[in-house]
Amino acid sequence: VKEIFSTSNPKIKQWRQLLSLSGRRRHNLFLAEGEHLTIEAIKAKQAKAVIIGKEQLERFFDWQNLDIPVYVVSRQVLNVLTDSKTPQGVLVVCPLPEIPDLHQAGPRLMALNRLQDPGNVGAILRTLDAAAFDGLIIDQGCADPFSPKALRASMGAVFRVPIYVCVSLKEALTVLSGYTIVAGDLCGEPYFDHPDFGLKVCLLVGNEGAGLDEDVLKMAHHRLKLPIPGGAESLNASVAAGLMVYDVICDFSSY
Amino acid sequence: VKEIFSTSNPKIKQWRQLLSLSGRRRHNLFLAEGEHLTIEAIKAKQAKAVIIGKEQLERFFDWQNLDIPVYVVSRQVLNVLTDSKTPQGVLVVCPLPEIPDLHQAGPRLMALNRLQDPGNVGAILRTLDAAAFDGLIIDQGCADPFSPKALRASMGAVFRVPIYVCVSLKEALTVLSGYTIVAGDLCGEPYFDHPDFGLKVCLLVGNEGAGLDEDVLKMAHHRLKLPIPGGAESLNASVAAGLMVYDVICDFSSY
Repeated sequence: VKEIFSTSNPKIKQWRQLLSLSGRRRHNLFLAEGEHLTIEAIKAKQAKAVIIGKEQLERFFDWQNLDIPVYVVSRQVLNVLTDSKTPQGVLVVCPLPEIPDLHQAGPRLMALNRLQDPGNVGAILRTLDAAAFDGLIIDQGCADPFSPKALRASMGAVFRVPIYVCVSLKEALTVLSGYTIVAGDLCGEPYFDHPDFGLKVCLLVGNEGAGLDEDVLKMAHHRLKLPIPGGAESLNASVAAGLMVYDVICDFSSY
Repeated sequence: VKEIFSTSNPKIKQWRQLLSLSGRRRHNLFLAEGEHLTIEAIKAKQAKAVIIGKEQLERFFDWQNLDIPVYVVSRQVLNVLTDSKTPQGVLVVCPLPEIPDLHQAGPRLMALNRLQDPGNVGAILRTLDAAAFDGLIIDQGCADPFSPKALRASMGAVFRVPIYVCVSLKEALTVLSGYTIVAGDLCGEPYFDHPDFGLKVCLLVGNEGAGLDEDVLKMAHHRLKLPIPGGAESLNASVAAGLMVYDVICDFSSY
């Protein structure tokens, strides 16, 4: 256990940079805040260091038996390591996972096209984790799943759900062999009338405002619209993704 | 059209207070930001005044033909009327709706118990709007649906979905006569095995961390758990609510 009470300590300066995408990429690390994420990181053997506020030392888990470095820091240091108004008092430093090979992906995938809200990206990862899906494909227009806001929404799913970052979603989809590609599309056919998707499926969810890009939409075997009998024009992206994912695992349409 | 370029103008001082719950209650008004919400408010005849940034005057809809006051303001004034880092340049002032009589409510309702995240409350309103549900019951532990963040997430649903604010959710539920009360509960029975709920249903969703209070849970005819075959402990509240709502309108369990 080491103590750091200065915000100009080199380690603190490095960790602080992990609040930005460029900093995370430069150091190949991310910073997750809160007891839940810290425990998940330790369980997943992804924790490289734990940072605990001096005042929170006793509140938290048995950090004394950890075989990774533990840093005790002042409240001022905690404040610079978070984008939140109410720092939670414990953080964990983790390596950014390597991008796995999409050719080896499991049978149930979701792909996001320019989904910009980090809360949506995080909540969708949480849903995929809950539903035991095999991975999430994201393109470069998506919010970073390792940003503080996305991490908070994902509730530790980043430690369990493989994330396939791609340059072009269209090209990534060409790699998927034997998958039924299903687009959530406000101009599509009634969603729950679809035929069986088979064992391998990739669900597509598009940008919050504009939906899926035309070249991505063209890759889909099915373009389906979730029912909206009421006044709203569309559903929240996480809610729509949740309905699509649970339709796959619960067979809402199979009768 | 009037011009206001000073943040100490009395109208600006009043509107600024609408960013807080106490200010909204004091003035019985709320402030919604963005072109989409402004248009929705005008369509719903709920707009009392429109506020437009001087630089955005030409970008927006035909404000010249509005029969309500339009105020043109400086960028500085826009900045104090928003909690967002990127003000959208147009806002609308609306009256807080009167709380309708729960005895007169329609057949399909959702009730929230201490749901604290304004983004969740807003996204759930949007789902209820999409699904043509008849109203949302919220207790005093819930995030205010008229806060800037909830309004952004609701996408105008506040103008269409009746909101029943209650002191005690348990007491509110006793008012509902002939409704099947269904609790989303992590300790419940498998969700999609439930029998038909009948025509009148009220779905209960609890606090993000703690779930439903025991006294509320006791009011439920069914305690049901959404399937979670994977690693996550629970679903995001908006996603869970979305599955429960769409199960009612699409009969996922009726076969």
